[in-house]
Amino acid sequence: MSHYFFEGFDTVKLAEQFGTPLYVMSMDRILRAIGSLKTAFEGNIDDIKISYAGKAFLNRAMCRIVKKSGIGLDVVSGGELYTALCSGVDPKDITYHGNYKSPAEMREAIESGVGVITVDGREEISALDNIADAIGKKVDIHLRVNPGVEAHTHEFISTGKTDSKFGIPLGEVGKAAKMAKEAKNINLIGLHCHIGSQISLPDPYSLALEIMLKTACDLREEGINITEINMGGGFGIRYTEADDPFDLEGFAKNMGENLRRLCSKLNFPIPKIIIEPGRYIVGPAGITLYTVGAVKNIEGVRKYVTVDGGMNDNPRPALYDARYSALAANKADIPAEEYEKVTVSGRSCEADTLIKDIYLAKVVPGDIIAVLDTGAYCYSMASNYNRLAVPKMVMTYGDKAEVIEREQTYEDLIGRDIIPSWL
Amino acid sequence: MSHYFFEGFDTVKLAEQFGTPLYVMSMDRILRAIGSLKTAFEGNIDDIKISYAGKAFLNRAMCRIVKKSGIGLDVVSGGELYTALCSGVDPKDITYHGNYKSPAEMREAIESGVGVITVDGREEISALDNIADAIGKKVDIHLRVNPGVEAHTHEFISTGKTDSKFGIPLGEVGKAAKMAKEAKNINLIGLHCHIGSQISLPDPYSLALEIMLKTACDLREEGINITEINMGGGFGIRYTEADDPFDLEGFAKNMGENLRRLCSKLNFPIPKIIIEPGRYIVGPAGITLYTVGAVKNIEGVRKYVTVDGGMNDNPRPALYDARYSALAANKADIPAEEYEKVTVSGRSCEADTLIKDIYLAKVVPGDIIAVLDTGAYCYSMASNYNRLAVPKMVMTYGDKAEVIEREQTYEDLIGRDIIPSWL
Repeated sequence: MSHYFFEGFDTVKLAEQFGTPLYVMSMDRILRAIGSLKTAFEGNIDDIKISYAGKAFLNRAMCRIVKKSGIGLDVVSGGELYTALCSGVDPKDITYHGNYKSPAEMREAIESGVGVITVDGREEISALDNIADAIGKKVDIHLRVNPGVEAHTHEFISTGKTDSKFGIPLGEVGKAAKMAKEAKNINLIGLHCHIGSQISLPDPYSLALEIMLKTACDLREEGINITEINMGGGFGIRYTEADDPFDLEGFAKNMGENLRRLCSKLNFPIPKIIIEPGRYIVGPAGITLYTVGAVKNIEGVRKYVTVDGGMNDNPRPALYDARYSALAANKADIPAEEYEKVTVSGRSCEADTLIKDIYLAKVVPGDIIAVLDTGAYCYSMASNYNRLAVPKMVMTYGDKAEVIEREQTYEDLIGRDIIPSWL
Repeated sequence: MSHYFFEGFDTVKLAEQFGTPLYVMSMDRILRAIGSLKTAFEGNIDDIKISYAGKAFLNRAMCRIVKKSGIGLDVVSGGELYTALCSGVDPKDITYHGNYKSPAEMREAIESGVGVITVDGREEISALDNIADAIGKKVDIHLRVNPGVEAHTHEFISTGKTDSKFGIPLGEVGKAAKMAKEAKNINLIGLHCHIGSQISLPDPYSLALEIMLKTACDLREEGINITEINMGGGFGIRYTEADDPFDLEGFAKNMGENLRRLCSKLNFPIPKIIIEPGRYIVGPAGITLYTVGAVKNIEGVRKYVTVDGGMNDNPRPALYDARYSALAANKADIPAEEYEKVTVSGRSCEADTLIKDIYLAKVVPGDIIAVLDTGAYCYSMASNYNRLAVPKMVMTYGDKAEVIEREQTYEDLIGRDIIPSWL
């Protein structure tokens, strides 16, 4: 039987060497994705910054890749900031986001000297100003704007009133900007928006860009100089053939043309554009390897293939009905005509359906299944449900493969447990 | 303003003393729930065993409560088994479950001497037999039966072919039982089923019990002596007023009457009955305290109240559209007429809606919100999404309150990260 190779690595051998369940992350793929983004956007927009959205997947190794690639990093919590700082990421390259920032987190962000803090609401402005004052540092901020545009893969809506916890409603941006202008320790330099995830079409971005530029123009009337516009992320990847391909080059070209056309029309100096891809950079760079346990055929209903991981290492199917592609890694040469329809189930004590109704080569206990494109929002969302360990992660680069996340041990699982005095 | 008291504790003071987000678990409530179960079932069924389903919430303190209460414990992974063993739970009181058991986990279960292993499929029988042989121990097993009955809160279906990854289809139980009978190191002593969660009506259990007893009768014909029937858990709790109350006493009475009637009709000796409540024991014993961050009114759309936790400490709303009740803990005396409709949002970089459209006293940043009935499947399903820490947990007992789970630190969050040699 021939094996499935992932970036030159025999996945069956990886499973044997490191055990399963196993996250495998290809640094080559990450670098290629970053390279494609740079080529597409730098070729179409003069002043562009790519900032990796760490929420998709962040650990110390990933921070090093970000640093090495010369791109920026978005963080959304003190924990992500800490990971970045202790990995040597230059604070100036970090943007601190989030709809909730504790006073301690604001302090950590300001003290460390992050490049930009994205302010999510008006209340944050005075809190930041006070903390910055106490520390004695000025802070560059962006205002996260709720532009009234929401995009999904196949459609987008423009309501003027997006129903979202994030950002400042369009009608209140002027007021927030004035507050920021008056705050002694704050420099408002940019606007931010993020209109959705897994987007394949450029239209909603065009509309959002227009709204952002018009808002920047309005602020200019008030003497506020917006020089940066952050258009967020959300570029789609193809989990299955049902997902539309994302035309990166066309998208960047469209954004560049729109930017020049709109700025010319509005007589507004072309601002620096920031994009924040997360999934696009790491999603297709990761796979998860599982060992097959029981194979159960419920006659006339469904054939279940159970694997040794599941919703604890990948909660996206349970959370979003997310679809994944997969294959039998040790039976890569079985022709598709001989595939059979099965449901791949995880081991958690829940329905824990990893992939419903997928065609796979006929598997038996002990076979290895590779689930593809698990680089984003799997490790980062992993849990210890059922006191299952978060799996090990191996990173490959060229012909090297090394562990970048060790597996949790039983000791780890009880590591924070304390028995109270009366028990 | 008066405060919300939980089992005698001022929740606002707990929030001040221990910080938020904070899980609070009342041992008194846990003991009362176990007491109610004992009273109801022991009064109606002569030979009954209550076995706590650890997947709802398990740590070392909870294991000690289980031990102290003299009830059994279900575990579903090596991690849960380890937690139980290192907390002093008698292995004989442990049942090992799960649709996937690795060879290492089977060995750990057999070596430690767990009371029963619940076999989920035929393949497991020979694997268990071989491992037991190597260790030189005999293993008592139950067969998990897929009875073709599925129950939900308001309805149940009987298909004869339940679409589930769990258990042995009814038509194959005879074959599996014969395999178990022939296996040298295995004693088949019982049957197990579990028909669903959050059930409020006895009817589906009655049907499942009848199926289980008939199956036991069929096995008697083959010379297999079933003396234990495990009816699983799934007893509902009331998260909100929309949930039906669960009549525990009526349910136990019904089960007892059915058991005697059916055994008499089938001329089958009344077996030991095992029930496995999880949520029923710990769900209402827990609350989560949060601090309010931004309060954002999107005119004509929705008012968002952001808190300092969310789907990382309670993924059930995101996973199952689960509904919770909540209140403003430091504004407990505001009359309901003055409540306003808000949506409580978590801090994760997702929609992260904790409670959509709930009526609360008007809150401002810094107020404390208590989300109720979070004792089950919150801590146990918690993640580090956004590299947010899993919150601290405090247990209360009488007038004492002590930390039973320390909060994760930043160091914990990077504790398994390894930078590969080339970075």
